[in-house]
Amino acid sequence: MFNIAIMGFGVVGSGVWEVIKENSKDISKKLGGNGESLVDVKYILDLRTFEGHELADRVTTDINAIINDKSVSVVVETMGGSHPAYEFSKAALESGKSVVTSNKECVAKYGKELSECAVRNGVSYLYEASVGGGIPIINAMLNALTANKIVKVAGILNGTTNYILTQMKECGTDFESALKEAQRLGYAEANPAADVEGLDALRKICILGGIAFDQIIPTEMATPVKGITEITLEDTAFAEKMGYAIKLLGVAEKCGDRIKLLVAPHFVSNSSLIAATSDVFNAISVTGNVLGESIFYGAGAGSLPTASAVVADVIEAIRCKPLPMLREYAEEGFVLSEDEIPTKLFVRSKKAIEGFENVVINGEYGTILPEALYGEQKKLIEKADVISTYFVL
Amino acid sequence: MFNIAIMGFGVVGSGVWEVIKENSKDISKKLGGNGESLVDVKYILDLRTFEGHELADRVTTDINAIINDKSVSVVVETMGGSHPAYEFSKAALESGKSVVTSNKECVAKYGKELSECAVRNGVSYLYEASVGGGIPIINAMLNALTANKIVKVAGILNGTTNYILTQMKECGTDFESALKEAQRLGYAEANPAADVEGLDALRKICILGGIAFDQIIPTEMATPVKGITEITLEDTAFAEKMGYAIKLLGVAEKCGDRIKLLVAPHFVSNSSLIAATSDVFNAISVTGNVLGESIFYGAGAGSLPTASAVVADVIEAIRCKPLPMLREYAEEGFVLSEDEIPTKLFVRSKKAIEGFENVVINGEYGTILPEALYGEQKKLIEKADVISTYFVL
Repeated sequence: MFNIAIMGFGVVGSGVWEVIKENSKDISKKLGGNGESLVDVKYILDLRTFEGHELADRVTTDINAIINDKSVSVVVETMGGSHPAYEFSKAALESGKSVVTSNKECVAKYGKELSECAVRNGVSYLYEASVGGGIPIINAMLNALTANKIVKVAGILNGTTNYILTQMKECGTDFESALKEAQRLGYAEANPAADVEGLDALRKICILGGIAFDQIIPTEMATPVKGITEITLEDTAFAEKMGYAIKLLGVAEKCGDRIKLLVAPHFVSNSSLIAATSDVFNAISVTGNVLGESIFYGAGAGSLPTASAVVADVIEAIRCKPLPMLREYAEEGFVLSEDEIPTKLFVRSKKAIEGFENVVINGEYGTILPEALYGEQKKLIEKADVISTYFVL
Repeated sequence: MFNIAIMGFGVVGSGVWEVIKENSKDISKKLGGNGESLVDVKYILDLRTFEGHELADRVTTDINAIINDKSVSVVVETMGGSHPAYEFSKAALESGKSVVTSNKECVAKYGKELSECAVRNGVSYLYEASVGGGIPIINAMLNALTANKIVKVAGILNGTTNYILTQMKECGTDFESALKEAQRLGYAEANPAADVEGLDALRKICILGGIAFDQIIPTEMATPVKGITEITLEDTAFAEKMGYAIKLLGVAEKCGDRIKLLVAPHFVSNSSLIAATSDVFNAISVTGNVLGESIFYGAGAGSLPTASAVVADVIEAIRCKPLPMLREYAEEGFVLSEDEIPTKLFVRSKKAIEGFENVVINGEYGTILPEALYGEQKKLIEKADVISTYFVL
């Protein structure tokens, strides 16, 4: 029997228990058993008491009860936030327990330190569930795409904003109304800032970029970081007319010895599978030097998809030797500044941009400039009374 | 140092060596090293001699040299065909070595026996590379989608036929000409039967269906098994007019206590990511009861993508405890007969089918019948002078 503890019994944490209970037989087989239950939740760390819940007698508020119990081999951290998630994870690792987390904030901030702590103690620190919900993207990048130097990771990493953009595109709803609808359906939080301003996608692309380029990339290095609050129906009309969809993308891409790393709304060609990704779904494209492009599509959030990724990591922690994933911080200047970014650029402007094909809607001009440095493009268009610009994938 | 042997040094086998050489540093890190070379190819089993090749001194024709060398822990089988691949794999497993293969024919035919042999000997029998080339679909189904009862696996599993269908759709080339072009480009073999008649896709869907439904499903159980040789430009014209693409799909789907398991060209709605998958690419959709649909897209064949999957399995064999994947043969009647299959159906006919919307092109009628048993639909259309029918995804 493998004993685990779940720290934080909220949406994801309770989903982890549901998955362990529901799929106990399959999990058993994956751990070498014959269908008998092999994983037991011995502790739940939470400030609430969960009276009447079948696991109510496992609930504790005392982290030391878990840390000091040598029979616990894996601790699931589904608390959210940086503190005390960081301190509790560190204590668990130092006591020789593997830690599995869905907490992207903690991974983005303390992933380096916690990974080093895991290596020192011969255990695993795993965080598949922190990016892409149920999409096994980290597993794929770490294990399955071994043959590749990864040159680019780009994708729709936030379901809430993708739902809003889908509504804007397909129903002609403006941003504010689409946001309200997303809140009504429970896709967006009462305070939607982390989603709509791109912070959630930022944490995720920093985690993925770190794996792709084998460095720790703090969120502060990314530029630009733009959300979707300024996208208008005029922009979506131009996109549609020109054969594109507007998608909020996180992008990490090798450019010589440096990388571009950013979060911004992009024009994405309708011929791309990324453009066809609607509603709350996520899609992540990984380009390797020999494999070319692979795309992973699926449910990017939700209790059970995320819990599914957590449980897969619990099985990995039990079944496999730890991966010693030690990375150093990226050096200053590793990430291109905004003006150094090579990109195609969509421009909406009051005056036509001469020398390029312009699409006209309601007296405004839409143009796609060929790939060049963003800084050069900004000079080129400065006299065109620009209303909005978008990178083009 | 981990010693491996490669049996069969053809396109994939030599790709395995390229990948191990090229990514030696990354592989080292994944095995707990610091960048020093940790995997060595100690033997190559092949009837050819490879004079002048850097590994020429490792080539042997004697399987016993490998079997009897206790320092070899993993044997890569990239020979193709059933014999002697089966016998050699069995001997390697019985001598306590894990076996990693890209050989779908051998997996489809002898996977059960070889998996059991691996379990008896406490080693792994891994075959990620046998389906979907570089797409980590088996790894995802076995490890990452733990939270799910899989209810459906469907996808484009053969790049050659997808290339031909893309040519027919986009360039209006007929089947024979598109096949010739595929042969000229090296995408199709001189004898293309295994690809264009659906046998390759059949082996793959049986492997995936076996994993999804935890049974061994012999290829003989699948019905129908149809390739792409009878698809005409008249069919593609109807598909295009009605908003579909024609794709050769392998499908394994739970229907109550039984499954449908088949390979056939399908009408796939243009709104699906599967329809947007062009050229030699593969895309595989997996639907789980809690996760919903996930789609995995990428290079489905080719030396390096396939070798990439082989090397990932070699790392898994070294790093992780074996998964005891024991499955029993599906019972007779587990797979629905053709007439029992519930499906939407596209019908092209000389007479209109009354009561349904008919699209007309050049005096012929195209109709999509709503979901019903195929046997019932056949009765419904028997008086319509039917020219062709297609399942609809």
